[in-house]
Amino acid sequence: MSEITRRHFIETAGLAAAAPALASAAEAAVQGSSRASAPRKTTRARDLSDAELEAMFRRCSNAGRWGRDDEKGTLNYITPARRIAAAALVKTGEVVSVGRDLSTKQSKTNAQPVSHIMMFSDANSPSCGDYFTIAPHGMVVTHMDALCHFSWKDQLYNGRKRSESITASGARWGSIYAQREGIFTRGVLLDVAAARGVSWYQPDEYVTVADFEAAERRQRVRVDSGDAIFVRTGMERMEAELGEQDIYPRAGIHAECVEWMHTRQASVYGGDCIEKLPYPSESFTSAMHMIVLASMGLPILDWPSLTELARTCERLNRWDYLLITAPLRLPGGTSSPINPLCLF
Amino acid sequence: MSEITRRHFIETAGLAAAAPALASAAEAAVQGSSRASAPRKTTRARDLSDAELEAMFRRCSNAGRWGRDDEKGTLNYITPARRIAAAALVKTGEVVSVGRDLSTKQSKTNAQPVSHIMMFSDANSPSCGDYFTIAPHGMVVTHMDALCHFSWKDQLYNGRKRSESITASGARWGSIYAQREGIFTRGVLLDVAAARGVSWYQPDEYVTVADFEAAERRQRVRVDSGDAIFVRTGMERMEAELGEQDIYPRAGIHAECVEWMHTRQASVYGGDCIEKLPYPSESFTSAMHMIVLASMGLPILDWPSLTELARTCERLNRWDYLLITAPLRLPGGTSSPINPLCLF
Amino acid sequence: MSEITRRHFIETAGLAAAAPALASAAEAAVQGSSRASAPRKTTRARDLSDAELEAMFRRCSNAGRWGRDDEKGTLNYITPARRIAAAALVKTGEVVSVGRDLSTKQSKTNAQPVSHIMMFSDANSPSCGDYFTIAPHGMVVTHMDALCHFSWKDQLYNGRKRSESITASGARWGSIYAQREGIFTRGVLLDVAAARGVSWYQPDEYVTVADFEAAERRQRVRVDSGDAIFVRTGMERMEAELGEQDIYPRAGIHAECVEWMHTRQASVYGGDCIEKLPYPSESFTSAMHMIVLASMGLPILDWPSLTELARTCERLNRWDYLLITAPLRLPGGTSSPINPLCLF
Amino acid sequence: MSEITRRHFIETAGLAAAAPALASAAEAAVQGSSRASAPRKTTRARDLSDAELEAMFRRCSNAGRWGRDDEKGTLNYITPARRIAAAALVKTGEVVSVGRDLSTKQSKTNAQPVSHIMMFSDANSPSCGDYFTIAPHGMVVTHMDALCHFSWKDQLYNGRKRSESITASGARWGSIYAQREGIFTRGVLLDVAAARGVSWYQPDEYVTVADFEAAERRQRVRVDSGDAIFVRTGMERMEAELGEQDIYPRAGIHAECVEWMHTRQASVYGGDCIEKLPYPSESFTSAMHMIVLASMGLPILDWPSLTELARTCERLNRWDYLLITAPLRLPGGTSSPINPLCLF
Repeated sequence: MSEITRRHFIETAGLAAAAPALASAAEAAVQGSSRASAPRKTTRARDLSDAELEAMFRRCSNAGRWGRDDEKGTLNYITPARRIAAAALVKTGEVVSVGRDLSTKQSKTNAQPVSHIMMFSDANSPSCGDYFTIAPHGMVVTHMDALCHFSWKDQLYNGRKRSESITASGARWGSIYAQREGIFTRGVLLDVAAARGVSWYQPDEYVTVADFEAAERRQRVRVDSGDAIFVRTGMERMEAELGEQDIYPRAGIHAECVEWMHTRQASVYGGDCIEKLPYPSESFTSAMHMIVLASMGLPILDWPSLTELARTCERLNRWDYLLITAPLRLPGGTSSPINPLCLF
Repeated sequence: MSEITRRHFIETAGLAAAAPALASAAEAAVQGSSRASAPRKTTRARDLSDAELEAMFRRCSNAGRWGRDDEKGTLNYITPARRIAAAALVKTGEVVSVGRDLSTKQSKTNAQPVSHIMMFSDANSPSCGDYFTIAPHGMVVTHMDALCHFSWKDQLYNGRKRSESITASGARWGSIYAQREGIFTRGVLLDVAAARGVSWYQPDEYVTVADFEAAERRQRVRVDSGDAIFVRTGMERMEAELGEQDIYPRAGIHAECVEWMHTRQASVYGGDCIEKLPYPSESFTSAMHMIVLASMGLPILDWPSLTELARTCERLNRWDYLLITAPLRLPGGTSSPINPLCLF
Repeated sequence: MSEITRRHFIETAGLAAAAPALASAAEAAVQGSSRASAPRKTTRARDLSDAELEAMFRRCSNAGRWGRDDEKGTLNYITPARRIAAAALVKTGEVVSVGRDLSTKQSKTNAQPVSHIMMFSDANSPSCGDYFTIAPHGMVVTHMDALCHFSWKDQLYNGRKRSESITASGARWGSIYAQREGIFTRGVLLDVAAARGVSWYQPDEYVTVADFEAAERRQRVRVDSGDAIFVRTGMERMEAELGEQDIYPRAGIHAECVEWMHTRQASVYGGDCIEKLPYPSESFTSAMHMIVLASMGLPILDWPSLTELARTCERLNRWDYLLITAPLRLPGGTSSPINPLCLF
Repeated sequence: MSEITRRHFIETAGLAAAAPALASAAEAAVQGSSRASAPRKTTRARDLSDAELEAMFRRCSNAGRWGRDDEKGTLNYITPARRIAAAALVKTGEVVSVGRDLSTKQSKTNAQPVSHIMMFSDANSPSCGDYFTIAPHGMVVTHMDALCHFSWKDQLYNGRKRSESITASGARWGSIYAQREGIFTRGVLLDVAAARGVSWYQPDEYVTVADFEAAERRQRVRVDSGDAIFVRTGMERMEAELGEQDIYPRAGIHAECVEWMHTRQASVYGGDCIEKLPYPSESFTSAMHMIVLASMGLPILDWPSLTELARTCERLNRWDYLLITAPLRLPGGTSSPINPLCLF
């Protein structure tokens, strides 16, 4: 593979991972920055090498753990008993939706916005309807990632091969359809920005295990088996104050946090950040996505809105709640738009 | 208005109401029957006249009940206390999804199926994504109706006018966005087919208040304020045994059931039937939709799949459960695809 | 009709006419100006009153001219003899495409850009394909208007009623399908900007019959029966130098030009302008569209790119050419994207 | 590559080539036959081996012929002089459109039909518009194939590599945009069904060079440099009489015809058949597409309707005419829907 080819590969794979410029060439111009040109300096933790990431990929694997045909991955941690316990967290009856509004506006990170077409049954009809188009992945729509969304070296969750599983007609393995019974479990917000006492993480910073545990200590909460975690770095506040940010660079969780989630048996990850972007690897272009989806089988609840949730947690002095979401039943899909609810 | 114009109006309005043939002319051919040609005979209850329906429209109105700017309608019955009580219904931790699979296949009632396009970030990329199109209304996709979906004589919920509220850019009043905090309440299945001891209702039959109450007695359950009800007439079993049915005629609930829901303060209606189709009225072409949406402000959870739910209820000898769904946050939308969950 | 309702009606009808903000509420924000707030002052000609426009609507009517069932309108002027004569205009073999590039970028006038999704048959497939969405009307996509695109007081071309012809399933009368044999005729560019010696018309200016005829004199050409005319006011140059312009206000042709086209028996109108926007009328909110489509039956070739065409005309000192375009065969459609060719 | 992988590859590549099952899994069920199960027996000519096809791929290459940056391929044969000569073929002024109607109906070969959504500017608006979705490739929509539509062993037209040219954002090389000046040339119909005296070719038959030349002799016409050829095997009549046919097996042109086109310097190929389907090769799964697009650079005018054209040719006793089409200006696209016109 020539150097040019390599860079091209990294570039396109990385774009796809982070916020898929998945539409037309003209849209590329909309985006403010590309992976190749983005600063890669990181602070607060060392970048892991490909060899270290590969070792972690193997250590964190849940292949075979719940049977050879399992497609649910870490959702298996959410047992009936966990659901009963999670329901008991509803104490005040308050609800916070952490879904973002579906936007029809094109922007730096939204090359392919929702199209919403109003339909009238007739010019003088008493009814109206709608038709809409949606591309859930990326940094705009709140969505669930199916386990098939990412592979690493042709490997998908539970020992399957991408080349034999992903077709133009849909995914035959690890699709969003495997999540059709939804997610109903204890949710825990790790407000790492508050724990560090900053308004927001800087684009070159990693979120580390120390940050996770500092948040646990401050909040007097402990992430346990089956929990769905949300990580708040203050990105929404940053964008509210500074305007929309580029896709690259962005703060993100360090790969060591992935292993921590494995050890703690988290069921779901969500956050106002994902992995550090861009990530300086040719093989693990999207290290976190690759390890959690393709090795651990842990689905990502991508792009929740955490501002109101954090405010409610502070007010009630509680950082755990009942988290519920139910992906649409799209056979073969790689994602679903969702509107997750947090009940207190 | 000439006779021809009138019939045309009824025809198109009716189509739109029931299962919007909202796409192209060619699709009309896909459908097996039209409103005009469908048998209108009904059994087990008398059709109400337009005058009677208009009187019911006025009696059941919740305009002003929760303030002049209220867009939530009967979701207001779901108080924090109701949510806390509903959470307590989670006793075994079992989950039943009542969403239907999103279908990409055209059929009698599915003129505008979902299009699901797989996107690869690149030919050799480690990731994949998807793009899909969806028209939620009709008898195929499990969806929530926004209150704006139907008007009667230019009236929308809470005294607003359709002509001033519904634009080509979306609904300014009563859109699905008003439901963005989701529905989390006690659900009750009224299995009227089981109560009558039939496999399914015939296409010319009404479901009556007597049927509702017979189901309550058999199941030893009572629909109370804030409950979301599901009505099962056996339509899914009928289609499983006899194949896909035409849009017209179909069994449906009698308008008197609408008033019963008003009295009982139900928050949501769902069922394997909606109103009797076709309905012999020029003004109330979709009587139930018009009254519950535009007068009561009661959102319809349209087209749930009730077979597995009914089986679980029988097995557990319980017909109430925690019902949860969260429409997508689509500003101005008239509907949202959903995947509702029932927790036992 | 109350004053507020009236203004609302004009506003929305006007938007639809000019550059349909036909998608979601969020997109409205994309647009830089609304009809209501746009300056309405016009120069170089007097605005016509509604009564004058209505008289013109009647005078220019071609209802019945080519039979009661005719849906082709002024395309009937393009006889086989006209086609033979037009073919003879191909003297140098040069081609100029006057289609604009399909843009996937949202802008002031492009609330609903094309979505272009690449499809791979499989990750390692030798082939690729595409899926795209398009809303042809407005000021972005080069398209043909079907005669059904506009009505005036429920009147469509050739005496049909809109209320009986336009359904949610498509147009039953005057659809784009009536143009399926395409347009193959003599084209004439009227370069009114060059004739006036200006770089571009100002937004408050009318193009008048005097301008048309000045262009004819300068170019030594005469518009004749069956000709497709293009009018160039320099708008593309204006946008190239000043950046994208708002929808309102815009220079446009005076209604007297419509009658001139009727007298000259033009078959098609196209231009870098259409009517003056906004137009100060409650009834004729889009006077030109209403008269040419609904009365004359003259289809509009909307939004051609005329810069290269004008340059070629100057260089060859010829302002007539063979004009060819062929709308897609979309039964019931109101428009088609096109890429018209001019052969010299 | 294991045997299973190989078969899977062939299967999916083949599907993509012939009539892309490019949407969801559910649509696969719509199709009546798969490549793997389709009879592969051929008659009237010997199948070529992969080695023979590879040799032909090299012999027919036009790489470098029109410069290293050429993306037009055989459209270069259409010189201004050819256009002038083609215009002179307009003698009677008759027009035949060879586009097929855009269908919104799902069928055996139409897994992804057009969606056509009517848009009203408002419930009481004088105007209406439309929004539609389209996936042009396959055996349904009349469309132009861009040269990038097919590669062979990572090779695209003019020495470019697919892996460096085709991205999720569109094709950087050989896209439909290269055809934006349209096609205006002499067209020749080779009515091989008429020449053989059959109503239609059987699904296991090849069209051979002998058939092409028999048609030339019968019609007293000779395909010359720059001509666009159409081949008629009677498939439309077959489907009119026998109903819709499966994708596999289908009659198609023998690879020797590809070389004949190269020798004769045809500019465009179109027909009611393409290559023989399925084709028994692991490497040349779509032999004709691969050679004409990726080696010769000859664009395919896919899926014209030839019945009326053939009738007109017989009536006028002329098999050549002016052929015109103009793909939409979609930067990066792999195809465009078209409505080609034939002028006599």
